[in-house]
Amino acid sequence: MKARIHVTLKPGVLDPQGKAIEHALLGLGFGGIDAVRQGKYIEIDLAESDWDKARTDIEAMCRQLLANTVIENYAIELTE
Amino acid sequence: MKARIHVTLKPGVLDPQGKAIEHALLGLGFGGIDAVRQGKYIEIDLAESDWDKARTDIEAMCRQLLANTVIENYAIELTE
Repeated sequence: MKARIHVTLKPGVLDPQGKAIEHALLGLGFGGIDAVRQGKYIEIDLAESDWDKARTDIEAMCRQLLANTVIENYAIELTE
Repeated sequence: MKARIHVTLKPGVLDPQGKAIEHALLGLGFGGIDAVRQGKYIEIDLAESDWDKARTDIEAMCRQLLANTVIENYAIELTE
């Protein structure tokens, strides 16, 4: 089973990486950009075959290591 | 319009961040993890309303700035 995890900054939290990308894109001549936000994308291959158990494990991994839940949100997708 | 971009290392390219996460998860007592890969996730809000033009622009942004196409793949999703 594969877990796809998106970790993104909560709305309102300053995102310097996103701002840097936005400025760089403007510098390259790309217009019409309203906002850029950067997050992390993590793929985990799991041996677990029970979907509920896998989701519980991944939730715990996100809370304990992958996301700083004070300033970040996480979203989990499980696929075969 | 919003573009969601995933930038991931090509298969076979060493991923030290992914390895570090894998070791940290094992250290926290999580078992059954076969592999971890980390990539980047970028959201861009665009003023453009033409889907074809938006996709062409985002492709150019990926090739010129967001992804190192020697070692990274990128995937683009456009949503309203």
